[in-house]
Amino acid sequence: MLGDCLDNVRKNTPLVHNITNYVTVNDVANVLLASGGSPIMSDEPEDVEDITSICGGLSINIGTLNKSSIEGMFLAGKKANELNHPLLLDPVGAGASKLRTETAVKLMDEVNFTVIRGNISEIKTLALGSGTTKGVDADVADAVSEDNLDAAVNFVKDFAKKSGAVIAVTGAIDLVSDADKCYVIRNGRPEMGKITGTGCQLSGLMTAYIVANPDNLLEAAAASVCAMGLAGEIGWNNMLPGDGNSTYRNRIIDAIYNMDAETLDKGAKYELR
Amino acid sequence: MLGDCLDNVRKNTPLVHNITNYVTVNDVANVLLASGGSPIMSDEPEDVEDITSICGGLSINIGTLNKSSIEGMFLAGKKANELNHPLLLDPVGAGASKLRTETAVKLMDEVNFTVIRGNISEIKTLALGSGTTKGVDADVADAVSEDNLDAAVNFVKDFAKKSGAVIAVTGAIDLVSDADKCYVIRNGRPEMGKITGTGCQLSGLMTAYIVANPDNLLEAAAASVCAMGLAGEIGWNNMLPGDGNSTYRNRIIDAIYNMDAETLDKGAKYELR
Amino acid sequence: MLGDCLDNVRKNTPLVHNITNYVTVNDVANVLLASGGSPIMSDEPEDVEDITSICGGLSINIGTLNKSSIEGMFLAGKKANELNHPLLLDPVGAGASKLRTETAVKLMDEVNFTVIRGNISEIKTLALGSGTTKGVDADVADAVSEDNLDAAVNFVKDFAKKSGAVIAVTGAIDLVSDADKCYVIRNGRPEMGKITGTGCQLSGLMTAYIVANPDNLLEAAAASVCAMGLAGEIGWNNMLPGDGNSTYRNRIIDAIYNMDAETLDKGAKYELR
Repeated sequence: MLGDCLDNVRKNTPLVHNITNYVTVNDVANVLLASGGSPIMSDEPEDVEDITSICGGLSINIGTLNKSSIEGMFLAGKKANELNHPLLLDPVGAGASKLRTETAVKLMDEVNFTVIRGNISEIKTLALGSGTTKGVDADVADAVSEDNLDAAVNFVKDFAKKSGAVIAVTGAIDLVSDADKCYVIRNGRPEMGKITGTGCQLSGLMTAYIVANPDNLLEAAAASVCAMGLAGEIGWNNMLPGDGNSTYRNRIIDAIYNMDAETLDKGAKYELR
Repeated sequence: MLGDCLDNVRKNTPLVHNITNYVTVNDVANVLLASGGSPIMSDEPEDVEDITSICGGLSINIGTLNKSSIEGMFLAGKKANELNHPLLLDPVGAGASKLRTETAVKLMDEVNFTVIRGNISEIKTLALGSGTTKGVDADVADAVSEDNLDAAVNFVKDFAKKSGAVIAVTGAIDLVSDADKCYVIRNGRPEMGKITGTGCQLSGLMTAYIVANPDNLLEAAAASVCAMGLAGEIGWNNMLPGDGNSTYRNRIIDAIYNMDAETLDKGAKYELR
Repeated sequence: MLGDCLDNVRKNTPLVHNITNYVTVNDVANVLLASGGSPIMSDEPEDVEDITSICGGLSINIGTLNKSSIEGMFLAGKKANELNHPLLLDPVGAGASKLRTETAVKLMDEVNFTVIRGNISEIKTLALGSGTTKGVDADVADAVSEDNLDAAVNFVKDFAKKSGAVIAVTGAIDLVSDADKCYVIRNGRPEMGKITGTGCQLSGLMTAYIVANPDNLLEAAAASVCAMGLAGEIGWNNMLPGDGNSTYRNRIIDAIYNMDAETLDKGAKYELR
């Protein structure tokens, strides 16, 4: 059950090393603490290997990459691989600039990621660009909907198989897939897109989930997606007149803080394909 | 009407490239989303030209400048000029350090800004320092008040004329001026100064407004100043016992999120000089 | 009385230069404003000396250090010493990586800090590592408790004597000590550990307190610890059903904003040893 994955985060207090952007980093840290995990941030090349070594897992988010932090990403990623730590890639803006696309593709080529999480456009960019995933059919639409769901599920399974990673595509409908099975998740609210960083927060949260559930990676990744979406629903229900996106941001993290296994199991809306 | 400027932001979803400081960047992103715009942050020199190219406008804020981001500011600024994108300069701390003053002045000399927004002290520093504005009479007081309003209005008109940019000076009384007309705005609350980044947020917001209202730049800039000040008033009215500056910060962004054209038109307090 | 220290912050509006991490920097700025102080952030080596010169004090926090900001820390620290400004070191993560430990130790060796604030593990790392503190007996437990309180008090007094700085060790029980006297403080709530950056916020706040109370450094540092812990208690009392760590963060800063001298004097829980 997904709730067990949540409980394991609370029991194990996974320490997560985040190399992430300076826009949403505070919310990432607070959502990790809310879930029962513990965050450390470090992007300096001379610092990252030591920090990754004391952590349980690594989350790499390229949202505000720079030359120094890119170097840090490769060093930390390779060290995490060496230590067999679970690690996640969030290729923010892949496809939007040459540097972002090339960095994400090169990271995929040189580092083995446990999970890759992004929107459909970012994930397609990776599927098309990476040498290790040549031959993936990325001819899917730019938003996952009921109409193109079959094609999208086939795409993520194919990319998961060729990359060897769990692939999480988030949007109105979320897909979390390995080569064989795909969770199709319908939690969340459209207003979450009016807050900066709900995707970055999910990447941090997902890393805590996979660190705390090493034998159950696919389910753990899916559980974190359901938890984040459900927190968006609970947070929205707690909104009062006059509240807007800034208060909503607090309400979502608060909902992660208060969520227990039973709430997650009851509220998760998914099917397996 | 100012409300039309607000509506145009909601209709056009302007994508704004922000090179800004790491102190207030999350609030800048959330206020842009609250207004109906969309934020992207990037300061790495190798990344900024691509990012600016996919955006509608650029906001440069020197609040925590460093050697790398300064290089990014010039590259992005010149690219935005090439593409005829509206762009804004927020010269945070100009006058407080040599690096900030020189960077702001050099940016003004090498990049054509659509709007320059700062407090009176920062704007005076630019007016005195920039080669393109030699001869501006900056002998005005360090705070705009009813007593020195005529001199301040003349100063901003003069600086607007010589710089070719709309000039926005914010404080207890706000002035938004081109060479001919000056909006004198009396929205806002003094408690807004007890929150970090209301100025930075306004710069982000103003950029969205000018991108969405390209034929009406002066009015758009003034509309964003009124909107931010009015949000400060509405947010203050929503404060409860025990609330302080951190909750006030949320309330202001929430008020931007919920503001419609009618509310802005009714609440805006300005005169034209 | 501790309340006088609080009043002096509100009266003097100390301007504090922060070289701090990008995770919690926004909260540090807002808590400084809440207390009556005023924050400036700058870490660029070419900028920091000018910025420190216009401030009343300096807070150095190594939470997300990088090569450039490290250079900035040394330049700013030496300039602050030259100008006889109070300055604080927050050695975030000392002991967790070689770069952090070496940077913190080298800062202690080359810069005279007025106060050093960290958790017991970080402070022990400094006591063992620094050439100026050779001979400090750091054989104390990794958490200060009623059981090991005597040993911990002796350790901080010894380290304060050898380093010449006020030492503040924060945790379940907080210790603030010079060579002679040690405040043992029992304010605060364990849930504060579920928010990122309450330690960083305290470092910013403490710097404002020592700048505004130059003749009373030990008491000022202790007052800021009591204020932060008390704000945690007040904030917790204001929590509603459904609230979590994100709202708690706002509530704590709000409590600092609303705190007066009388509240602090009544709520502070400390003894002198």
